[in-house]
This record gives sequence, structure tokens and C-alpha cells, in this order.
Amino acid sequence: MAVLVCYELYKVVDGWSTGDDDVVIKILYCGICHSDLHSIKNEWKNARYPMIPGHEIAGEVTEVGKNVTKFKAGDRVGVGVMVNSCQSCESCNEGFENHCPGIIPTYNTVDLDGTITYGGYSGMVVVHERFVVRFPDTIPLDKGAPLLCAGITVYSPMKYHGLNVPGMHLGVLGLGGLGHVAVKFGKAFGMKVTVISSSPGKKQEALERLGADAFVISKDADEMKATMSTMDGIINTVSANIPMAPLLGLLKPNGKMIMVGLPEKSMEIPPFALVAVNKTLAGSCIGGMRDTQEMLDLAAKHDVTADIEVIGAEYVNTAMERLAKADVRYRFVIDIGNTLDKAAAASE
Amino acid sequence: MAVLVCYELYKVVDGWSTGDDDVVIKILYCGICHSDLHSIKNEWKNARYPMIPGHEIAGEVTEVGKNVTKFKAGDRVGVGVMVNSCQSCESCNEGFENHCPGIIPTYNTVDLDGTITYGGYSGMVVVHERFVVRFPDTIPLDKGAPLLCAGITVYSPMKYHGLNVPGMHLGVLGLGGLGHVAVKFGKAFGMKVTVISSSPGKKQEALERLGADAFVISKDADEMKATMSTMDGIINTVSANIPMAPLLGLLKPNGKMIMVGLPEKSMEIPPFALVAVNKTLAGSCIGGMRDTQEMLDLAAKHDVTADIEVIGAEYVNTAMERLAKADVRYRFVIDIGNTLDKAAAASE
Repeated sequence: MAVLVCYELYKVVDGWSTGDDDVVIKILYCGICHSDLHSIKNEWKNARYPMIPGHEIAGEVTEVGKNVTKFKAGDRVGVGVMVNSCQSCESCNEGFENHCPGIIPTYNTVDLDGTITYGGYSGMVVVHERFVVRFPDTIPLDKGAPLLCAGITVYSPMKYHGLNVPGMHLGVLGLGGLGHVAVKFGKAFGMKVTVISSSPGKKQEALERLGADAFVISKDADEMKATMSTMDGIINTVSANIPMAPLLGLLKPNGKMIMVGLPEKSMEIPPFALVAVNKTLAGSCIGGMRDTQEMLDLAAKHDVTADIEVIGAEYVNTAMERLAKADVRYRFVIDIGNTLDKAAAASE
Repeated sequence: MAVLVCYELYKVVDGWSTGDDDVVIKILYCGICHSDLHSIKNEWKNARYPMIPGHEIAGEVTEVGKNVTKFKAGDRVGVGVMVNSCQSCESCNEGFENHCPGIIPTYNTVDLDGTITYGGYSGMVVVHERFVVRFPDTIPLDKGAPLLCAGITVYSPMKYHGLNVPGMHLGVLGLGGLGHVAVKFGKAFGMKVTVISSSPGKKQEALERLGADAFVISKDADEMKATMSTMDGIINTVSANIPMAPLLGLLKPNGKMIMVGLPEKSMEIPPFALVAVNKTLAGSCIGGMRDTQEMLDLAAKHDVTADIEVIGAEYVNTAMERLAKADVRYRFVIDIGNTLDKAAAASE
């Protein structure tokens, strides 16, 4: 498995020029999302090689098209999981470009012009301004980059389902790239946050490093029983098929579990677990552009960033191997700006 | 299987007197809910015999306790599926007495005083005023009685989940006691209503008698495909285990399916069906007292009542046999006021 890293892609495109609505971005950092690993291994059976992954992109504007009003050269900006959509359907008009049937994901997709989109493990990217967000000054680009996927993925459903109210009790199921950011947003919203995990070893970091209020070991029947019917909501970040009934039991009446992970097989849901006291099981996948900007602004206000391990571009393949073993706390971020040239030169 | 019918129960209770907060009701009509059938057959393994079923009770106040302010003798009132709760927990305070851990269902339950509650197949009932609702003048008691269970069961989640907005597209899955009322409330809210059913024979009555806008046969792949991604919400009244993925496919992004039936086995839910475009699967069970009164008031305004077949008390056992075969359009209602005396006399 080799990850492609593309250096100044635009140089190889004949007759390239900046589109009227486009923002040209020099990429400085790019987070490594677990979906990058799925994609390069073709686990979703839709890989288009050569592939350049990466959809947690942070960098600096170098040029803008003539219609662009929101950005100028020098601005600190980010690009997440999509670079275009139809911009005219009901979903787009409601601010859910992520639901648009015409969504163009940031990489591995045929774009409107017939070319394949390439992601952020690269020196630059060109994106319609609607799909570019501004990093508030106080958010470092390296720690901020993962917010563009992991951050919005947990923020969007918390907002949509009203799980952002001070005093509410939020459960965060699974403590990885998504979960650790969910804990931080929960605390930013003024909620009581309980991490639910099968790994007792994560208790200390959950409480001390991330600021969670409590930690429940999902395999400990006594702890689960003591926590029953106490949570207003659960952000479920686990991508494995695990028994759902005990987890739904942690919810209060009218409580909501939001799936942001994608288990491979169907979930078995006992109807009574939902019907008896009006519980909700919902899914959510990333979020719209308006919410993404709002999320970054809130993150800046409450000092929410991802916990990361910065790596050089030459380390990407090793990072992928470690990511496959969940050996990272909690996101790898590639220092594109300082290491891509060197890595590219070394590979020539 | 014999259904007990109790005539003027209070006469056999030693030293009985009206409690300070109680309303004494002469029962005139009582609907037959499918759960009555489950209960008398002990299908839920919790039967307490002798049992008097019935939780769709309509009648007239004959006496009130000294603290009662909302009702007076002569008022036309109703009692639904519960007759008491703790009245002090978070759920009760939020108007969801139906979620109270201390809920006292209308029949087959040990009441606070240690006696067993008896339901509406009876000459009278005594209920705390909080659990009594007023029938607006324009609602006939016979056609109104089923609203106290079937009506609130579909109204409550439509309100709670925002599926009550003019112009929205509502799917009603299953056309029975609950479904036919859901169609009527959907139209009352100004929604486009599509009935989804496995019975082509119900198409005509859905469209012509109930006023649905469209009818989709759930087993017709072409019809289902043509309806994909068009519905804002679905009220799922089906109590059988049916494939859920095609039904969830009928929902738009952010669409919600609300289960008000209770299939016996676990549902198999493909995660992608919820996660891809933020869909919700929620459960709901009856509703709170404030919403029940609100539902009746709205029903009066929009002329929503149940379609019923009025029967005499002597017909109850036959009605139960027909109900087991779904042979009723759509609710049996016992004419207690005019037939109970005679039936009781005949059985002596």
C-alpha cells in the first residue's frame, strides 16, 4: 500500500487558470482521516487510482477568482470533505450541501469537468469559495485541520438534534478521532459529558486530558446499570457492530442516539427500546458549509481543537499502518508546508 | 376467552367515596384497542385476572372531589391509557406523564392503594382530574373515544418530531386503527399524505374515504422506487417485522420514521440507511395529558374523529374475534350507556 503524494498538481494540468468563483489554496497541513485508509485500500470498492486522499485541509489563500468576495490572498482557510455540490437543490438551499445528490467529495470523485478530484495530501487545492471556510485567528492550522471532518461530523448532529444545551448529559461512545472532539464540544456547550468505552485504559485520559466528567466501561454491567436512563443524548462514533439495546438503555425518555460511525452489518434494534419512552436512533454524516464555519467559530471561542500527532509527508505510509491499529492519540496531521518538498525530492 | 364486563363496580368497594382530586365518570362509550386483545389473552405475560380492559373511555361526569377545578357534573369527558403517575418527576413536569416510571395504566395494574385498576368496559370509572380530558362539544363521544389512544398515539410524535407542518409530505405505513387517524391528522395539518400498505384493496378507501393524496403498495418495487426520497416523515403503525431499508428509502434527507407499533422481534437496520443523509428512526408510545387535550381540541377544529363500528356490550367477544382477523373499519366502540345494563342482566 503506497499513498500518493502530489506536489503542485496544477503544474501538470494544461491551460489551467483560476475559475471565477475559485479559491486557490497553498496547503500547509492535512489531517489523516480513517476514511482515507478505507479509500486507499479500496475497502469501499470505489477507488479511482491514482488517488490523492485527504479531506482535512488547512492552508493559505494564494489567489482568488474574480467573483470571490469572502476570501483574499493570505487568508487562513480550510477545506473539508466536499469541494462542490449542485448548489440549487432543497438540501443545498437548506445548508445541507452534504446531502446534495450532486455532492463532489474532495477526492476520488469525478468532478463536473470530468477530471478526478484529488485531496489534501498535496501542495495545493483549488475550490469553489462556497466550500472554503475561514480559520479564526486563534485556531492553529495543524490542530484545526481535523475539525473539518471529525469536528463537523460530531458538531452538526449535536446542533441539529438539540444536543448542545448547557446542563444536558451527553454520552460519547468511543474515544477516537471523532469521540475526543465530541467530548470537547460537549464541554464547550456546557454539558455533562460521559465517555462510554470498552477500553478501561482510556479512563484517565478521558477524564484528565479531555475533561470528561465521567467514564463508563461498556462491558461492565454494574457501571452500565448505574448509568441507565441518565443521558439526553449519545454520539455513537463506533464503527463496529455492538449490542445496541444496553446503550439505548442509557438514554432518558426522549433521548437520542446519533450514529456517526458506519458499522458494516445491520444493527439489531429491539422495537421496545425505542418505542417505550420515545427514544430516537438517528444517523448523521459530516455537515453543511454554514455549520462548518459556525463550528470553527465556536471552536475558537472555546479553544476546541483536535489532539494531534504532526508527521512529515515521508511518514505517511507508516502513519497509515499505525492508524489501522488505532495507534494514535487522536489524529495524524501531515505537515505539508514544511515536509512535502523534501519528501517529493527524495522520491524522485 | 371471555371478556369481563363490570357493572357499577364501585358498589362492591367497601367504604368507597370520591377522592378530593377525583372525577367520577359515568362511562357511555369505550373503544376496543388491539392492546385489549393482547391483554386479555395474556400475550404480554402480565395479565391480572379478573381483568376489565378498555382505555378509550368517553362519558359524563357525575361527581367531583372537593379539589377538582377543571370539571363539574355533566361535563363530557374522556380517559385514555393512564389514570395516574407520580406527578412530580422530570417526565411528568415536562408533560410526558406517559414516560413516568410511576405511571398507572388504566387497567391491569396495581394502583397506589394496592387495588387493581379496571378499565372502560364498565359502567363507571374514577380518575384523578389530571388524567381526565374534556371532549369539545362538536366531537361525538362514540367517534371521539378512540382518539384517546389511537389519536394521541399518532398525534404526539407528529407534534414532537415536527411532522405537523403544512406542505410537508407524510407517509402513513399501515391503515388500521392508528393509521386511519394518522391520515386524518396529516390532512388536518395541511400535509400531503401518502398511505403505504401491503393491501392494494385499501387504496380506494384510503383515497376516497380518508382523503389521502396518494397510495403506495409496499410490495410494488416500481411504486416504491417512484416514491423514494420524497417523504419528510413516516408514521409506522405496523406491528409486524417487515424490511425497514426500503421504507427508510422513502424518506428525504433529514427524514424521520416514527414507530408506534411494536414488532415482536428486533428490527434489522442497515446503518447506511440512517447515516448517509441524516435519517431518524424513533419510537413513540401514546402521549402526555397536555398533548391529549390539545389533540382533542385540534380534532374538533378539523373534524377529525375515528371511523367506528358501534357495538353492544353483548357483542364484545365476537368483536374480539373479528379484531383478531383485522375485520373492522377501523375501531369497535362499545355503546356502554345503552347496552351494558341489558348485557349484565342477561348474564346474571
